[in-house]
Amino acid sequence: MRDVAIIGVGMTRFGELWNQSIRDMFAEAALKAMENAGVEKLDALYVGAMSSGLYVYQEHIASVMADYIGQRGIPATRVESACASGGLSVKSAYLEVASGMSDIVLAGGVEKMWDADDGSFILATASDQEFEAFHGVTFPGLYAMMANAYMHQYGLTREELAQVPIKNHRHSVGNKNAQYAFEIDLKTVMNSAMVADPLRLMDCSPITDGAAAVILCPLDRAKEFTKNPIKIKGIGAATGPIALHDHKDVTRLDAVRLAAERAYKMAGAKPEDISFCEVHDCFSIAEIIVAEELGFFDYGKAGKAIAEGQATYGGKVVLNSSGGLKAKGHPVGATGVAQVIEAVEQLRGEAGKRQVPNIKLGMTQNMGGSGGSCVVHILEAV
Amino acid sequence: MRDVAIIGVGMTRFGELWNQSIRDMFAEAALKAMENAGVEKLDALYVGAMSSGLYVYQEHIASVMADYIGQRGIPATRVESACASGGLSVKSAYLEVASGMSDIVLAGGVEKMWDADDGSFILATASDQEFEAFHGVTFPGLYAMMANAYMHQYGLTREELAQVPIKNHRHSVGNKNAQYAFEIDLKTVMNSAMVADPLRLMDCSPITDGAAAVILCPLDRAKEFTKNPIKIKGIGAATGPIALHDHKDVTRLDAVRLAAERAYKMAGAKPEDISFCEVHDCFSIAEIIVAEELGFFDYGKAGKAIAEGQATYGGKVVLNSSGGLKAKGHPVGATGVAQVIEAVEQLRGEAGKRQVPNIKLGMTQNMGGSGGSCVVHILEAV
Repeated sequence: MRDVAIIGVGMTRFGELWNQSIRDMFAEAALKAMENAGVEKLDALYVGAMSSGLYVYQEHIASVMADYIGQRGIPATRVESACASGGLSVKSAYLEVASGMSDIVLAGGVEKMWDADDGSFILATASDQEFEAFHGVTFPGLYAMMANAYMHQYGLTREELAQVPIKNHRHSVGNKNAQYAFEIDLKTVMNSAMVADPLRLMDCSPITDGAAAVILCPLDRAKEFTKNPIKIKGIGAATGPIALHDHKDVTRLDAVRLAAERAYKMAGAKPEDISFCEVHDCFSIAEIIVAEELGFFDYGKAGKAIAEGQATYGGKVVLNSSGGLKAKGHPVGATGVAQVIEAVEQLRGEAGKRQVPNIKLGMTQNMGGSGGSCVVHILEAV
Repeated sequence: MRDVAIIGVGMTRFGELWNQSIRDMFAEAALKAMENAGVEKLDALYVGAMSSGLYVYQEHIASVMADYIGQRGIPATRVESACASGGLSVKSAYLEVASGMSDIVLAGGVEKMWDADDGSFILATASDQEFEAFHGVTFPGLYAMMANAYMHQYGLTREELAQVPIKNHRHSVGNKNAQYAFEIDLKTVMNSAMVADPLRLMDCSPITDGAAAVILCPLDRAKEFTKNPIKIKGIGAATGPIALHDHKDVTRLDAVRLAAERAYKMAGAKPEDISFCEVHDCFSIAEIIVAEELGFFDYGKAGKAIAEGQATYGGKVVLNSSGGLKAKGHPVGATGVAQVIEAVEQLRGEAGKRQVPNIKLGMTQNMGGSGGSCVVHILEAV
């Protein structure tokens, strides 16, 4: 396989983008990424989107986007793995370049969520329809069960759990693309509306419109386009049980552990080598379990470690410097790509106030459903 | 890139499969393909499906399927390009193997269409939503406009057009997996209900449930599994205008021509080398235009050539030996994979009464929308 680098990034602001259609958003992100990379012609395009059919009644969106950004004719592929669609888009584009099939490939992601009036139902199509969604369970309910089990098993307190969104909102301040770039405190979390006990509104990532895109090329051509290419050093993808009841232990996410193992192996790296990681904090409990499966903390210890400052600047590893899904926003198909953009900006030293110092390696972790799928990337400045 | 071979195939019967859910159908096809290849463990899985969200409210289906066929843990990717989703699944699996990322990869496709009550609207999400679908145009209407333009421009008669479904139904007889494996005659076509002038019911591919799967591996490992591996010699994918009004000439399908050019180039082949081709006859006019874009007949000549027997046994090239979308059925996401299965069975010499003699190369052509995307494969027995 050829080595592959990221040479350009671009994204929309995340939020309620009432004035932009799904294609407007994608075009903005894609054209920004192409400008950032200094490329005018793509060889292929990938789009991650969870449910453009149910959200805005438009399937076939890879062709729509190729057409709409002026690249009609190139091969274009939509990939979907629920909330991990964006990470999968980057992985798929990586394979297209690594195989030698194409050189300049755009990996994007997009979701237009605010236009739909049944968002919770649409998101629930990422769960097991026959055994979960059709019986009324939605994702806040599934993650609430995980949170209850974790709190019971490991003695995590409700106040400690609240430290995850508090940290992520603090990180988001100054991130011009974040949906909710402001600080919150313990009172904000504890007084926010109950969604699914014990998860409150401030434990849940929001509904978001947005798009993100990165440009990949063979590493040995990267210097033609940029002074600071970012190498994709490791990739791991995995599936897990589609239904929560099939987890052997609902406080574990097997797909995350498997994906991370594969990415670490490919990169020749260990958890200690990772300076920062964008993790999939769709709900506050998710960040805690994920941080353990990625190897940053022992089982049962991440909640307290995060509450003690081990996942912020000066701690063991910076988790969600961007603000994470909670504060930056979670336009489902775009999220995994936006995570990679944050990693690229950190590795380029362009993250401004959010800059993580002395970076060795950066990581992103994008997840679908209640752990039905996961994609992990390990990135390095070269 | 490594050379890649197909070592196993499996599919459900195509039709109204009221007793099988989307996962039941996929599992049947996938397990048959694995048995046919003699493999018990996959390294990765791809699923092509156009709109499992709108049809049966289940997204995240690659993870569902990995889980349901007993392969939980492996990387799994759903790809979508409307009616070309199946072809794209095979292409994506090809890249996974060619790149060296994985060895034993399943490429499947599935669609569960009969459970939905608004099938025409769901299919129309493959067109340009903003400029076509939301204004009431559905695919019979779009292809009817193409048919009218073609008949006007080239003098094709209504009776000649009818020869496409008549031929394909004749080919389907004895195909145990076909939805409508019976002969029809000119009277059947001309007396069938008008759908969108000039297209009648017998010009339109049906609504179908079904699934199909093939197993890919590196060519140099293929003999471990089978005596008759089929090499994927050429692949071409392309996009075209998403909206019909953006075609420079509505009697042309640019994406088909581009995809074919790429596949011919990769395979080092010419149209004269192709003994048979499974083409995307979603409507009878589509087969005619596609046959021209693939280089089998000059522009304006394919309709008459097909009517004169040049696209059946003993003619220039056998088009749709399986019965095509019209007679075999068109479960959207499965179609492109099922085309590849027909090609494999022909190249293995296992096609029974449908066997094409003296095959040099086989080809498949799978298309999305009104030419918004196309995937072409060229296959060879080795």
